Amino acid sequence: MANLFGGQNEGFYGDEGPIAACATALAESALTLVRVSGRGCVDLLAGCFSRPETLRKAAGNSVVYGWLVDGGNRIDEVLISVYRAPKSYTGEDSMDISCHGGLAAGRAVLQTLYKHGFRPALRGEFSFRAFLNGKIDLTRAEAVLEMVSAKSDTGRGRAVARLSGVLEQEIRHISKLFFDSLTEIELLLDYSELDGVTADDEAMPGREAVEEALSRLRRLERSYHAEKLYRDGALAVIAGKPNAGKSSLFNLLLREERSIISEIPGTTRDWIEGWISIEGIPVRLADTAGLRDPGDVLERLGIERSFSLLDEADLVILVLDGASGGDEVIAGAEDFIKEWKDSPILPVWNKADLAPPPHGADHFCAANFCAANFCAISTKTGDGLNQLYERIARILEKTAGVAAPDLSCAALGSDRQKTLIDAAISYAENALAMHDEGLPADLIAPSLREAVNCLGEITGEVSTYDILESMFSRFCVGK
Amino acid sequence: MANLFGGQNEGFYGDEGPIAACATALAESALTLVRVSGRGCVDLLAGCFSRPETLRKAAGNSVVYGWLVDGGNRIDEVLISVYRAPKSYTGEDSMDISCHGGLAAGRAVLQTLYKHGFRPALRGEFSFRAFLNGKIDLTRAEAVLEMVSAKSDTGRGRAVARLSGVLEQEIRHISKLFFDSLTEIELLLDYSELDGVTADDEAMPGREAVEEALSRLRRLERSYHAEKLYRDGALAVIAGKPNAGKSSLFNLLLREERSIISEIPGTTRDWIEGWISIEGIPVRLADTAGLRDPGDVLERLGIERSFSLLDEADLVILVLDGASGGDEVIAGAEDFIKEWKDSPILPVWNKADLAPPPHGADHFCAANFCAANFCAISTKTGDGLNQLYERIARILEKTAGVAAPDLSCAALGSDRQKTLIDAAISYAENALAMHDEGLPADLIAPSLREAVNCLGEITGEVSTYDILESMFSRFCVGK
Repeated sequence: MANLFGGQNEGFYGDEGPIAACATALAESALTLVRVSGRGCVDLLAGCFSRPETLRKAAGNSVVYGWLVDGGNRIDEVLISVYRAPKSYTGEDSMDISCHGGLAAGRAVLQTLYKHGFRPALRGEFSFRAFLNGKIDLTRAEAVLEMVSAKSDTGRGRAVARLSGVLEQEIRHISKLFFDSLTEIELLLDYSELDGVTADDEAMPGREAVEEALSRLRRLERSYHAEKLYRDGALAVIAGKPNAGKSSLFNLLLREERSIISEIPGTTRDWIEGWISIEGIPVRLADTAGLRDPGDVLERLGIERSFSLLDEADLVILVLDGASGGDEVIAGAEDFIKEWKDSPILPVWNKADLAPPPHGADHFCAANFCAANFCAISTKTGDGLNQLYERIARILEKTAGVAAPDLSCAALGSDRQKTLIDAAISYAENALAMHDEGLPADLIAPSLREAVNCLGEITGEVSTYDILESMFSRFCVGK
Repeated sequence: MANLFGGQNEGFYGDEGPIAACATALAESALTLVRVSGRGCVDLLAGCFSRPETLRKAAGNSVVYGWLVDGGNRIDEVLISVYRAPKSYTGEDSMDISCHGGLAAGRAVLQTLYKHGFRPALRGEFSFRAFLNGKIDLTRAEAVLEMVSAKSDTGRGRAVARLSGVLEQEIRHISKLFFDSLTEIELLLDYSELDGVTADDEAMPGREAVEEALSRLRRLERSYHAEKLYRDGALAVIAGKPNAGKSSLFNLLLREERSIISEIPGTTRDWIEGWISIEGIPVRLADTAGLRDPGDVLERLGIERSFSLLDEADLVILVLDGASGGDEVIAGAEDFIKEWKDSPILPVWNKADLAPPPHGADHFCAANFCAANFCAISTKTGDGLNQLYERIARILEKTAGVAAPDLSCAALGSDRQKTLIDAAISYAENALAMHDEGLPADLIAPSLREAVNCLGEITGEVSTYDILESMFSRFCVGK
């Protein structure tokens, strides 16, 4: 596959050849970091470096200054951090080349490396090698990916826990419980063969261990709702009549929580959106009042698309113009709510500084998909915002089936892990059910072994090339 | 000023306090590099690092592995490259912290650093300190900025030359020529005072040196046309009737030269554009056929804005539908050309695979703002593209007043340098003119001193805080 920078990908996951990739975003910035790793990489790089002998002799964890050169041409002034196997991220000899930022410098450095024998790294190939060389298990490798794409500080914090091995330890602990049970079964089977005692005469050996394993697996399984919410976030759509204050609320929320705005209006969308963090939940906030100005045709189109967006919403923030009079507001809200059947709706009484919600309006709507009472705010004064944040967070957590997250516990970080945990739970439940039915231990043992296999696949002790390739190819290049 | 990440800018250019900034683009990527520098920075960082003593004792140019922590919280797993004064970019103790990529990780690391006593770096503050500490002169500092924003490999190559000191050496050489002349004048003045000989009796001392300096200054001045073209690039706008093949040509050129596409269609523009590199010239290529679909109102708007774009163009690539018949094509082109008075126009005969340009059509237009003959291409087969590239490059070079660039020579890299070189040229010319008029050497000397001052300002030997601040504040943060 031809690469953006002219290199050819000739390698495959699992070879040990010298690879190179840009590890930072290629954009106008102060510095660009280019990462290289693999067999003979120090010698190769010395071939296009102004101080080849110094580089060749450089100890691990040292930094060498010089120029990257191509024949007589100076390419860039660089700092090279040298890592020696096995003390590196990949477990191989590897180097981080800190060059000048910007598109042209990074590209020129990569082209020079390709010319001198490096090949472009595949997605996630550095992490793949780290896994192959026993530096990280798969839960940590996935945590690396999570760190990179974390959208809020809570998401990052939870990835850090997995990165430091909390999940790996918990999985190994549960595996050990299954093993304990299996060991006792084996002992029993050996014993019964010798003495003519049949296995089904006995209570299931190690049943307690299996029960504890199952309870721990279920806790992990439950943890995933919160993880998913904090990792992937939720879509909240601001809706309401013109002039209710939708755009004011949108801008206010983005400005207040501006830190993780990552998307900007694009031509392919007819609404405006941005990511904000509400109590650590990454919220993709969309304002359906997007492109209203250009004319009738577009406006109609925009509104139609907004409707389809509302169908996807995890929460609809319905902004009402409090100043238009209490009955009017409530009637308008009820009209609006008829349009949607599924998404939770949070009705927001805006302009509360001009017209506070009347008494008795607290419970205007009993429909179960709609929050029971108004959230009164003023986009003009900013009053009520904290209450709004809290209610948004609680509704999203409730919808996702999340209790308050507990950072200290091990928790799942990927769909892959969730699928395997679900399978392990089935096998464990199956084993216990077979025992309840009085089936002999030698029929139960295979289910327990399958459960162990599922857990081994989570950490990567049990894995196939296909599984690994499909997992690491979701990474970004340079990771 | 409150910073994006919650830090407060309390510092000023020239203090030595500990500063921190993200040196790579904060985006979803494998790694993020955070740079810190300044008095006590190693101790400060040790205060939020898992292995404080190892970091405190770390030698210069070594790498320390560990976790960035905030109290009991693990923030991120990092590698810290330690540099000790004066052997660092800034000349101070400084460190590059390699953390996980992504918005959340970079932000969490910066917030932790701010909490532990670092302040956000001002724009260009690392380079400013490098200058103050005598690590780089101003021409090299500006070359750093050029490297970051270089849009083509040629632009990068020319910045590299300045980064390695070619321009600085040339400026110092020219300064020395003026000094030589000044020294001879001083000697003469001393001598004449002693012996009662008046200065105007003598030939101007060191006139030859001044003449050589002037000739070198003029060469530098001329070099700037090419530098500017290769650095800032030029705007080429694709125009023509519907179905002539404008979008096909646009897509073909972008695909062929895809490497530096940096802009994508946005809602604020009614045309599509991208950067390409043609013979090393960064060309901002715009297709006026942008938003045609959405309806009548927008189409009219788009076309009106396209017209204003054409006014700014350095080159209009007029695409003609060769298949519509020779006379038709020529008449259409002539109609089109009437609309513009200034921009050079390159008429492109598209669909040459179906209908090659007829003989005699080579010189269809004698207007001096239009290239004299068609460039025949086929966007379908790709034929004629190389010739098109060459003609675009030649027209842009001619318009910019550029001869073929010579990479080996010193050349100017910024408007600031150009202004100062122009001033130095005026002073040198003035000095020679005064001598021609027979004025005495003591009246000529001040002009030569002013020329030396201008050159000193280019390298930064002569500078004021205001000049420096305005220069470095154009840098990006982290540089």
